[in-house]
Amino acid sequence: MSAAWSVEVINTGTELLFGSVVNTHLAYLGQQLFSLGLRVDRQTTVPDGLAIADAIREATSRSRLVIITGGLGPTSDDVTREVVAELTGRGLQFDESVFSKIEAHVLKRGFHLSAAIKRQAYILEGATILPNDFGTAPGLYLPSTAAFPDLLMLPGPPRELRPMFQAYTTPIIRKIVGHSDLRAMVFRTSGIGESAIQELVGADLDTIPAVEVGYCAHVGAVDLRLIGTGSAVEQGATIVRNKLESYIVSSDGKALEEIVVELLSKRNETLAVAESCTGGYLASTITDVSGSSAVFLEGNVTYSNEAKVRTLNVPQLLIQRLGAVSEEVAGAMAEGARTRSGATYALSTTGVAGPTGGTEEKPVGTVFIGFASAMGSTEVQKLFYPTDRLTFKQVVTQRALDLLRRRLSFSP
Amino acid sequence: MSAAWSVEVINTGTELLFGSVVNTHLAYLGQQLFSLGLRVDRQTTVPDGLAIADAIREATSRSRLVIITGGLGPTSDDVTREVVAELTGRGLQFDESVFSKIEAHVLKRGFHLSAAIKRQAYILEGATILPNDFGTAPGLYLPSTAAFPDLLMLPGPPRELRPMFQAYTTPIIRKIVGHSDLRAMVFRTSGIGESAIQELVGADLDTIPAVEVGYCAHVGAVDLRLIGTGSAVEQGATIVRNKLESYIVSSDGKALEEIVVELLSKRNETLAVAESCTGGYLASTITDVSGSSAVFLEGNVTYSNEAKVRTLNVPQLLIQRLGAVSEEVAGAMAEGARTRSGATYALSTTGVAGPTGGTEEKPVGTVFIGFASAMGSTEVQKLFYPTDRLTFKQVVTQRALDLLRRRLSFSP
Repeated sequence: MSAAWSVEVINTGTELLFGSVVNTHLAYLGQQLFSLGLRVDRQTTVPDGLAIADAIREATSRSRLVIITGGLGPTSDDVTREVVAELTGRGLQFDESVFSKIEAHVLKRGFHLSAAIKRQAYILEGATILPNDFGTAPGLYLPSTAAFPDLLMLPGPPRELRPMFQAYTTPIIRKIVGHSDLRAMVFRTSGIGESAIQELVGADLDTIPAVEVGYCAHVGAVDLRLIGTGSAVEQGATIVRNKLESYIVSSDGKALEEIVVELLSKRNETLAVAESCTGGYLASTITDVSGSSAVFLEGNVTYSNEAKVRTLNVPQLLIQRLGAVSEEVAGAMAEGARTRSGATYALSTTGVAGPTGGTEEKPVGTVFIGFASAMGSTEVQKLFYPTDRLTFKQVVTQRALDLLRRRLSFSP
Repeated sequence: MSAAWSVEVINTGTELLFGSVVNTHLAYLGQQLFSLGLRVDRQTTVPDGLAIADAIREATSRSRLVIITGGLGPTSDDVTREVVAELTGRGLQFDESVFSKIEAHVLKRGFHLSAAIKRQAYILEGATILPNDFGTAPGLYLPSTAAFPDLLMLPGPPRELRPMFQAYTTPIIRKIVGHSDLRAMVFRTSGIGESAIQELVGADLDTIPAVEVGYCAHVGAVDLRLIGTGSAVEQGATIVRNKLESYIVSSDGKALEEIVVELLSKRNETLAVAESCTGGYLASTITDVSGSSAVFLEGNVTYSNEAKVRTLNVPQLLIQRLGAVSEEVAGAMAEGARTRSGATYALSTTGVAGPTGGTEEKPVGTVFIGFASAMGSTEVQKLFYPTDRLTFKQVVTQRALDLLRRRLSFSP
């Protein structure tokens, strides 16, 4: 990466400053740009409307590539096109082919074609159109001139921006940037903390000067990041692999659920789940993976005790004596889900997600994860994660999937 | 809010620009500040290190309150304290009582008290200390002078920043701002597009000059936002209610799933779900709501055809003749889920999430949503949402919940 390069991101959206929406664009663009050999040097959020003019003026005066998100939509506060037209002294031209595409998109969904929607078919003179395959407003790329750096205008909704970036923006940026020797490798780990990782690999990695090491803790997982020249990263990766061994989930960006679905597919084996405290999140995480239908047979979200008895055959007496949140019930849930579905394996979760429902013996955060297999005995892990309700569902899901990953990776 | 007021947020953190962490500070601070009568006018992210100096210089030259997050920690790239000291010409003084608190915090957790940790006990001359009850680095408040506006320095980790903001920053901001008449109201809508909303209410709302109107599209929902003086917002709200009627889900920030759980609770009724294409996401969305266990009995993620037959009693012949993605199967799934659980209502989803599995007759994006009720006939909606797999799950979940909301809101 040349030191001369400088990239800025401008996000427009009153809702971002107002706090009703979290800005996920920066994280997405940061990751994507890095893989293209670029780093974001600065990011600014401005409200919808004319405030964007100042931000664009400032960014274009100091950076070589400015990426603007939002403000391309149909409503009156969407003014990115118009502001850039004025700043660059370019005209806006109605584009029939863009309009036809917008029209088809709107009518296919049975929406009414309002006059405002037409605004989105106006294109900046000299701009390359970036088709919007998942919405109406196209993106625009304005190549650099003597007075202005390269400008990319992308739509605000992430479901429109992301596929547009992948398909149409990446090739443009590759062309702008040219070759880069910068390489990054991210090891996703599970079951070990950030500082424990640093203790295992930190000193050894410090002996490679050309590599920059970063740690990033997610919910239920820690990423270890190596950045540097190709050979230095390769050298670092060898150290990481030798030291972290089974803690490593992937080194190619794959999430735990993708790895689990891959392992099951390779082994021609199947999975069922029985969820109480995760409430469907475990099943939903697995079914996020394209191709999961080949290995995932059934999920049972048995929220009520009756459902645990009726659907999973958990003995009523077990729940009465030991409570729904207990080692025995977790085991019986996993066995019940496996038996009824005929799957090779089953995972179960039962715990106190909170904020209410905790007791002295089983406080909020208590959870049991069950694992049943067609080939062996049932296993239950007891864990304790006192946190908010949503994080709890996520952590427990990660731990359940990691339990399965370890059984699949390290058994014949 | 006086027009003279202007607030900026500066977030420091290389990990934010690199994309390994999503910046949730802005959304949090935006919401908190709004409830104090302030709006964030601009937000900037800069990397760790000296880049923060330019950002602070720019923000302090144009704003009345600048809030800086991050850069107060122990490592060498944490330089916020030092940069502000230099810019404002103030000294840094070691504070014994702050250090004792840091020492106690570190030792209690069994960590080693490194020399670097001591840096965090240096306090800017004239600054008010904001105690950090969940970490080491204290926050700092530097009152405005002739040359500089009010400056707030807060720690980077959200689990430290948020409680500090609540406990120690809020009273300071109240004192700085005084009284404010600014009010905001956000209508969450469902089943109607952004531009259709604007067509229904835009012209009427434009007749109220003291109200600012904003639109924000989410997956499966659109927010309509009114900001202005109390009476103007009230006037606008009446227009919105009259025009949008049943499209309005809430006007108090509540999500669709919260409204559905509330309605069921009030009516003493219960719900079960049967999911195919949403793969557990519908159940998980419902169980995100605290208190959902009182109304949500059971979820069945019947991904395989066998599971649909075995668990939901869907006739095998129906699947063979019409396919799992069909109106009839959606209806049978809802009825099966309702019957087995004994719930008042059941929702079902079956569709082609993609990216594979589409046919000419049923392309990727085709979905059927079923609704069964103990009191009436079964109903099925056919919809079409060609998009990515994850967005598809979200949209279909929103549509299913909205179908239930409408039945609950507009039936006795």
